[in-house]
Amino acid sequence: MARNIRIVEVGPRDGLQNEKSSIPTAIKLSFIDALASAGLREIEATSFVSPKWVPQLGDAEQLWPALPPGPLYSALIPNAKGLARAIDLGVDRIALFTASSETFVQRNINMSIEQSLAVFADLIAEFRSRKPSGWIRGYVSTAFECPYEGWIDPRNTANVAKKLVDIGVDEVALGDTIGVAVPAEVAALTKIVTEAIPVDRIAYHFHDTRGTAIANVLQALELGVGCFDSSAGGLGGCPFAPGAGGNLATEDLVYFLERSGLPTKVDLYRLSQASLAIFEVLGRSPSAKSQLAQLSLSGTCPT
Amino acid sequence: MARNIRIVEVGPRDGLQNEKSSIPTAIKLSFIDALASAGLREIEATSFVSPKWVPQLGDAEQLWPALPPGPLYSALIPNAKGLARAIDLGVDRIALFTASSETFVQRNINMSIEQSLAVFADLIAEFRSRKPSGWIRGYVSTAFECPYEGWIDPRNTANVAKKLVDIGVDEVALGDTIGVAVPAEVAALTKIVTEAIPVDRIAYHFHDTRGTAIANVLQALELGVGCFDSSAGGLGGCPFAPGAGGNLATEDLVYFLERSGLPTKVDLYRLSQASLAIFEVLGRSPSAKSQLAQLSLSGTCPT
Repeated sequence: MARNIRIVEVGPRDGLQNEKSSIPTAIKLSFIDALASAGLREIEATSFVSPKWVPQLGDAEQLWPALPPGPLYSALIPNAKGLARAIDLGVDRIALFTASSETFVQRNINMSIEQSLAVFADLIAEFRSRKPSGWIRGYVSTAFECPYEGWIDPRNTANVAKKLVDIGVDEVALGDTIGVAVPAEVAALTKIVTEAIPVDRIAYHFHDTRGTAIANVLQALELGVGCFDSSAGGLGGCPFAPGAGGNLATEDLVYFLERSGLPTKVDLYRLSQASLAIFEVLGRSPSAKSQLAQLSLSGTCPT
Repeated sequence: MARNIRIVEVGPRDGLQNEKSSIPTAIKLSFIDALASAGLREIEATSFVSPKWVPQLGDAEQLWPALPPGPLYSALIPNAKGLARAIDLGVDRIALFTASSETFVQRNINMSIEQSLAVFADLIAEFRSRKPSGWIRGYVSTAFECPYEGWIDPRNTANVAKKLVDIGVDEVALGDTIGVAVPAEVAALTKIVTEAIPVDRIAYHFHDTRGTAIANVLQALELGVGCFDSSAGGLGGCPFAPGAGGNLATEDLVYFLERSGLPTKVDLYRLSQASLAIFEVLGRSPSAKSQLAQLSLSGTCPT
């Protein structure tokens, strides 16, 4: 069982990039400040993708220099232009995005998986030369199943993970992009991936679309994985239907870990307040389960 | 790992009794028919509690004789009067309700735990004399934590479970009434309870208030427990806040079990339709996660 658990809060980037409305920079900063105050220590704060593609994150130049001190911040880098922008701002933790489904990579970044890895190799060389002590994460989306191709052979995912480590990423985040995985699949994938790369290089990025995310975290923990992505209030994902979750909510992850005796140093009450505030701006309720319960359950619903 | 999994659908009783509005009997029957058509084989259909206390289930006399053939139906029995009403209608599967918290039992049924067990012993004797091949379930609510007393010593829960089996119940359903438990607690409780009664007498009744229910099912399955309660669409529980789950949704349980290679013989699509129909009557959306995703996800949300 992994003991030193890391939570990577992806709400400000992966969450907000999937929201229809663009949030003003000042509100993002106040949200991130609230997350930092709640105790989150690793936050993926924004992306240096072209504002034409993701206008929601088009304020990276304004946001980054104003980030509150404390947490380790990272940013998603799509290409050389994005890397140059990030380096100019002093970004020293970056994330790169590929997947284990050819169709998914083609449709998302208009390259083959191999092409994406070749691009990353150049980005990594440039980044390492400018930021020798920098940190690099590689996302492997559709690690279990692809919305276009269906089931993905875990050996494909392990192969992409290994290539990412070979070209120099520090951590590989395996994404259950459409939220289909169950613990048996997490066990199978983890076993195959850990034959290719060390377990402490693995993070899981679970979506709670079908309610299995916490069970998947449990399974991964039992196999020694200690890093998990989540988003405050369940920001992002597929907000087209009430109750249909996207990203695993940080509140649910923190509740589960803390109650399981695995300390997170995150204050669940403050985190819930941070989520409620940003969701109020978005005009809907958080999809986190433990959040609302934590704030309002008071022995009145004993059924 | 348990292999022959039973699902006890509690939506029509535990779900609807916690809804503010009373549903017409014809709509309940159509709901139950849809659940039966979806493949659910054990359904707790109603309660023979006084209509004064639970008007939502005041139509048991009209409902029971009209139940569609197929599933095994059970009914909650609060007292001798309720038992007499049930026996008159030919009910041969009954459920009795107590808890492992004194305060909770006192507040809910105005007795001590010992008094509730004494009442049950009389009810069981009467039931067995009239229905020798009948089946009896005993609920132990607040098996982990009580909204009034807080943490409950698992030895208390095991003690109540043992006494229920001693007085003749066939199955004990351990309830995480306020939805706080995590797998480590499920493991601890299961270990202690199985020292007192056989594992095949145990069912778990999880609430998904904080998103841990499926992880708890996984843990219980791994320890040999094979019976789980759930409610279609997540009916019932604490519907006071969007996203704050009550009962584990049957859709989420079925999705998890089926994808884990544990066949349920339940058709998830039909089940989802059954839930959507009853929730339309209730004027809100199901809290099930897999339901909505199952019906509407089509590769359009690949984040």
